[in-house]
Amino acid sequence: MKKHIAVVPGDGIGPEIVKEAIKVLDCIAEKYDHEFTYTHVIAGGCAIDQFGKSLPEESLQQCLNSDSVLLGAVGGPKWDDVDPSIRPEKALLGIRKELGLYANLRPAKIFPQLADASPLRQDIVAKGIDFMVVRELIGGVYFGEKKTEEINGELVASDHMNYAEHEIRRIAHTAFQTARKRHHKVISVDKANVLDTSRLWRKVVHEVAKEYPDVEVADMLVDNTAMQIVKNPAQFDVVVTENMFGDILSDEASMITGSIGLIPSASLGDSKRGMYEPIHGSAPDIAGQNIANPIGTILAAGMMLKYAFDLDTEYAQIEKAVEDVLADGYRTADIMEDGKKHLSCSEMGDKIVEYL
Amino acid sequence: MKKHIAVVPGDGIGPEIVKEAIKVLDCIAEKYDHEFTYTHVIAGGCAIDQFGKSLPEESLQQCLNSDSVLLGAVGGPKWDDVDPSIRPEKALLGIRKELGLYANLRPAKIFPQLADASPLRQDIVAKGIDFMVVRELIGGVYFGEKKTEEINGELVASDHMNYAEHEIRRIAHTAFQTARKRHHKVISVDKANVLDTSRLWRKVVHEVAKEYPDVEVADMLVDNTAMQIVKNPAQFDVVVTENMFGDILSDEASMITGSIGLIPSASLGDSKRGMYEPIHGSAPDIAGQNIANPIGTILAAGMMLKYAFDLDTEYAQIEKAVEDVLADGYRTADIMEDGKKHLSCSEMGDKIVEYL
Ligand SMILES: CC(C)[C@H](C(=O)O)[C@@H](O)C(=O)O
Ligand SMILES: CC(C)[C@H](C(=O)O)[C@@H](O)C(=O)O
Repeated sequence: MKKHIAVVPGDGIGPEIVKEAIKVLDCIAEKYDHEFTYTHVIAGGCAIDQFGKSLPEESLQQCLNSDSVLLGAVGGPKWDDVDPSIRPEKALLGIRKELGLYANLRPAKIFPQLADASPLRQDIVAKGIDFMVVRELIGGVYFGEKKTEEINGELVASDHMNYAEHEIRRIAHTAFQTARKRHHKVISVDKANVLDTSRLWRKVVHEVAKEYPDVEVADMLVDNTAMQIVKNPAQFDVVVTENMFGDILSDEASMITGSIGLIPSASLGDSKRGMYEPIHGSAPDIAGQNIANPIGTILAAGMMLKYAFDLDTEYAQIEKAVEDVLADGYRTADIMEDGKKHLSCSEMGDKIVEYL
Repeated sequence: MKKHIAVVPGDGIGPEIVKEAIKVLDCIAEKYDHEFTYTHVIAGGCAIDQFGKSLPEESLQQCLNSDSVLLGAVGGPKWDDVDPSIRPEKALLGIRKELGLYANLRPAKIFPQLADASPLRQDIVAKGIDFMVVRELIGGVYFGEKKTEEINGELVASDHMNYAEHEIRRIAHTAFQTARKRHHKVISVDKANVLDTSRLWRKVVHEVAKEYPDVEVADMLVDNTAMQIVKNPAQFDVVVTENMFGDILSDEASMITGSIGLIPSASLGDSKRGMYEPIHGSAPDIAGQNIANPIGTILAAGMMLKYAFDLDTEYAQIEKAVEDVLADGYRTADIMEDGKKHLSCSEMGDKIVEYL
């Protein structure tokens, strides 16, 4: 198989971790006789520095021309004071929007080798944490009209949260289809006791649910969900929700696994081309020191093989290599414990390649 | 001291738990020679049943005419399908808005007697969980324009999130003043990398911060906060945020204490008159069985004595009685453990009165 990948290293530790993911992809290519080619795409804070905007037109085109996008991380305090219209995050939001990536899939799963790292009580962890947050990614308050204007001598800011039926319908389908490949249970999260968008959300989700009689569906209010994720995460299989709630809940869900450096995420649309990235940020404080954990990005590359290129075996190989490396006691600094073997970022990449 | 209290029992377990709180208030009145009188106010689902709306004009007037409002809980699945404009929650939102209660104060604090109940790892709990969430309560997406309309043959729903400078300024003052009575640290939570309202929020909070040079202030993004509450709650003293984020984060924060049946909340405005309530819901599944935990409501009544009536000693007495009752091993069903003494809802009220 021949595939062309747009690689966006981004800022902070982005370049280091992406490098390790490419090592792994190259190893897979050799082993399974694929040809992966890469275009290095400049986006994020580094693009602001070079071009005055975080997503130059050419960078966007390179993503649009690729078979899939692999991203490290963007942003950092260096660009905290730039104009909101050119912020590093705009690169992320721009790629999501322009590529039509309306569904963000984020696994919240305990690696048994790292179960101790969970901040939750061991009896809660022991019941199992393995669910998927399906977050709507290009609608809601993120993309509605925003303005800040002077009214009666003071500033008033506003953000509009909008959802149209078709935007809810397509993400609901993603959730139910995801549930079919898992344990056939969808929890749809909203704030229907307060928001109009949530009431429409609930109505459309239940309409779509009728097409999936084999999948169980229930509604949960967002505030209650924030509690249930901590209290009893074993109850969840697939959690589907709108953009802003999904941002908050998916981060909470990753944190309970205790290993946010290891979690990948996939952003998908109607075509096969998606964007794959680790869920952690650009960690500027440790950038350039070769101590970051590349596993989240390596698993993101793995998800890309599975979702974008249908290479299920290759994906499974990467996941297994990561698990074996962890099982054999290799750790980067962020997950280091007494008695384990410490590896740098590049050594971890090499080790995973070795296990492959 | 003579005070007139509007009592809103509400739905589900509301009436049972409020009854125990009144027992405690009456005991305090007798002991300290105060006179508390009560008006029973009908609001919530029960008001829909009787009057076709959750907050009849007379009920609102009774609240406005009181020195303070004590509320049990409103809502339940019975009213899930009523028209959104008359939902039980409208009673709560209506009282908040009409009484100008812009600040919701919610302690997240571990009762040492119940530390085992926390879903977090004991080493995390041992570092201490004791912070206050200060949530803006009558602005943001809760109260902005809402509509659902047909556009191009499909429904489109929208909710507007608005904040004016003065709305942010007053809640910021509440947060800094609260911090002055605690450990002089405020974390202000927003999503300034995406929302205009958050950027205005951040700007105004930092302006107000200048008036409190003795209080440390830092910003935290809402998604990161959802993680930090689970990972390292000991870092927080006062957390201030807008309405929707506050709804989610304050529930998450209460859950990590492991005892949501014990947590009170105070909703305050510029006058002394506030609304006091437990943070838990109406629990219709256990209503009428005399097994609910009245401690959240009893502590809410305690907060009322402190914040609305400046009765600090009386408040401290109630808090101490609750702690002693717990220390002596008395438990309602929700927090029952092996080897402890089981009490019904009314027995728990009696026991706390006995300890007073
Ligand atoms: C960087 C930010 C704009 C982004 C978001 O809020 O979507 C991030 O938090 C994420 O979850 O991918
Ligand atoms: C019942 C609901 C409208 C309310 C809210 O969202 O404010 C509740 O969740 C709360 O936190 O008091």
